[in-house]
Amino acid sequence: MIAEILCVGTELLMGQVLNTNAQFLSRRLSAMGISQYHQTVVGDNDQRLEEAYRLALSRADVVITSGGLGPTVDDVTKRVAARVAGKELVLHPEAEAMVRERFRQYHREMTPNNLSQAMFTEDSIILLNHHGTAPGAIVPMGGGKEVIHLPGPPFELEPMWLEQAEPYLQRRSGRALVSRYVRVFGMGEAEVDQRLNDLEMGGNPSLSPYCSLGEVQLRATACADTPEEALRMLEPLIARVKERLGDVVYAVEDTEQGSLARCAVEALSRRGWTAAAAESLTGGMIASALVDVPGASRVLKGAMVTYQEEAKTLLAGVPEEMIRDHGVVSEPVARAMAEGARARLDTDIAVSATGLAGPDGGTEETPVGTVFIGVATREKTRVIPLRLAGSRMRIRTLAMKHALHALWEEATREDNHE
Amino acid sequence: MIAEILCVGTELLMGQVLNTNAQFLSRRLSAMGISQYHQTVVGDNDQRLEEAYRLALSRADVVITSGGLGPTVDDVTKRVAARVAGKELVLHPEAEAMVRERFRQYHREMTPNNLSQAMFTEDSIILLNHHGTAPGAIVPMGGGKEVIHLPGPPFELEPMWLEQAEPYLQRRSGRALVSRYVRVFGMGEAEVDQRLNDLEMGGNPSLSPYCSLGEVQLRATACADTPEEALRMLEPLIARVKERLGDVVYAVEDTEQGSLARCAVEALSRRGWTAAAAESLTGGMIASALVDVPGASRVLKGAMVTYQEEAKTLLAGVPEEMIRDHGVVSEPVARAMAEGARARLDTDIAVSATGLAGPDGGTEETPVGTVFIGVATREKTRVIPLRLAGSRMRIRTLAMKHALHALWEEATREDNHE
Repeated sequence: MIAEILCVGTELLMGQVLNTNAQFLSRRLSAMGISQYHQTVVGDNDQRLEEAYRLALSRADVVITSGGLGPTVDDVTKRVAARVAGKELVLHPEAEAMVRERFRQYHREMTPNNLSQAMFTEDSIILLNHHGTAPGAIVPMGGGKEVIHLPGPPFELEPMWLEQAEPYLQRRSGRALVSRYVRVFGMGEAEVDQRLNDLEMGGNPSLSPYCSLGEVQLRATACADTPEEALRMLEPLIARVKERLGDVVYAVEDTEQGSLARCAVEALSRRGWTAAAAESLTGGMIASALVDVPGASRVLKGAMVTYQEEAKTLLAGVPEEMIRDHGVVSEPVARAMAEGARARLDTDIAVSATGLAGPDGGTEETPVGTVFIGVATREKTRVIPLRLAGSRMRIRTLAMKHALHALWEEATREDNHE
Repeated sequence: MIAEILCVGTELLMGQVLNTNAQFLSRRLSAMGISQYHQTVVGDNDQRLEEAYRLALSRADVVITSGGLGPTVDDVTKRVAARVAGKELVLHPEAEAMVRERFRQYHREMTPNNLSQAMFTEDSIILLNHHGTAPGAIVPMGGGKEVIHLPGPPFELEPMWLEQAEPYLQRRSGRALVSRYVRVFGMGEAEVDQRLNDLEMGGNPSLSPYCSLGEVQLRATACADTPEEALRMLEPLIARVKERLGDVVYAVEDTEQGSLARCAVEALSRRGWTAAAAESLTGGMIASALVDVPGASRVLKGAMVTYQEEAKTLLAGVPEEMIRDHGVVSEPVARAMAEGARARLDTDIAVSATGLAGPDGGTEETPVGTVFIGVATREKTRVIPLRLAGSRMRIRTLAMKHALHALWEEATREDNHE
């Protein structure tokens, strides 16, 4: 099956709205094994929209629209689709009841043109909108092709897709699709790519990588008659990936929404450890990433942002002489920050980050991008020296990720187990 | 002039990457008064890309591509454009020097196929990439039409656009376009919209709003023969906006890349004030947002993330009895956190945030979304009580923005001036 996403809205062409709908739908479709070759954005314009429908329907089996279902004259999505299908819009009682109910619920006055939101071609399947006033629909276009209308706001579109449109397409295909996610830290995209080159095929099961700053995530997907069978197909693939990549693989999970911070919090929590941080160039990013994870309060006691030299001494107890002798961006200061934070907050582990994020301030000896990550436990302290590159934000973000990874690594280390 | 954005990359079709480039370019083009009627995404596929080029060039004067400039076989953008133009790719010495320099700088080995990054049609104008290894180019396509190739990563694309491609298009149009940005905090989008309803016209000068969480930014743009004339046209419009919105307007600036954090750092810096923070639910976000601003080290001494109760006492000196009597999410604790942070780090001002980000833990008295922001100066302390709504991330982010705004407000307050 081939699908094509067609987003309708002048606000997208003006750049007033970020098109998160296209990403959401692409991800879901690709996880379902449904191919997509084009995505298009057009404004609220009759003629251009009609051309876009005709082009998309010539290339795809299912055209998924977002936006343009409201009651104003700008909202052309349904009207033009009906014209392309050669059919009339009629009032659907089920959709009408939903629209009336929604207006009652929002205490809003309903005008006659609000009823146009309940109009679709007669053979349409209505998709109820539990978060807004505009219903969606699955509209037969002839020749076995369909248009799926979804509302524009993501908080309306996403549940409508997940609860109604996606199950409809799943039933239509009659197959089970299962994905697992392999998370990698500490190996570049190119290196991962090279090692898995022959596995990254578009077959079944399939493996596809995606990268964010410093991280690579691999999605392994299999399609079978049952979820159990699909899962069985994934096992040997994932075993091979782990074998080829070694210990840069830090997690294999069922959910796409993974993060180093969540893995670190879970590992610390399993260990029953409390944690602290002393941050200089990261300025609170490490702590904030941990706090992002619900349940972090069991693990993170607190942290200190020791940005100026004085704060390193006042908050983390780093001796002034040490800063004078070695400089703030140094192995001893990273060590003292981690040990100081751990001792001050009496935690099982503490992590620190000191470094030079730039853009200015670099010297020959300590160029921009020099970073030291300290990790102190009750038994010992180690310091990881890094040489990072790029913008201020990039260097800070990478430093934060290295610190989170160090927390995870220490909490999962075998010889640390009591 | 009509422009069309063509994003190239299978990772976009798979949903692995959010298409922020399309929004960035749309905004800039729309600010320049350049019309756009379509945006397209295609994968790394020769034939479909060729069709997309031909279609886009039939509708637009300038086709702007993002992505696909790297050295792998997947990177088809330049090669297919050259084929459509009926020309060969040749090595550009200027581009070659840049690629070699970048590899030297990143301490990376250069392979022969990396040189393909320096190849463009002979009549192309090279756009240097100061943040990555792939140069861009402006490629004449015949009939006065052009393709502008930009790299995929936003931190490479955005500066290349702003520093080289946009000035080129400006010169081509021969008109001066000037924008100013009015930043609003503390008034919802709908309210702003209603108050400016009659001003938000697509004329010249024009006014267009866009919103991020808790903030509204209004872009006022005028087009004239000279920048001075354009600026003169903007003055009465901006005066009317300020009059209608009142003191929720916290800045009027020439640059789009504004932020509450930058305004706060600049205001503190002008005042010669040092600052500190004590963060609970924000967990380091306030400090990190300040550290994001280059030059923050003159202002921010440090901060404490007092996540668990114990840390509030240990780091910020909040009395245990106070926490027991009033609860951690309370006006007195916010006050004590701000005062404790200010005193401990001996700064001119300190801000604090304590609250309940959820999703769990709410009570009837203190529901999820209850937040207190404390602001302590050497003279006095005030506490701002907030009732926020939404996800954990939304509540935390809004709390952070309120804290930054409070810093800005305090630093710009007339009666604080010595």
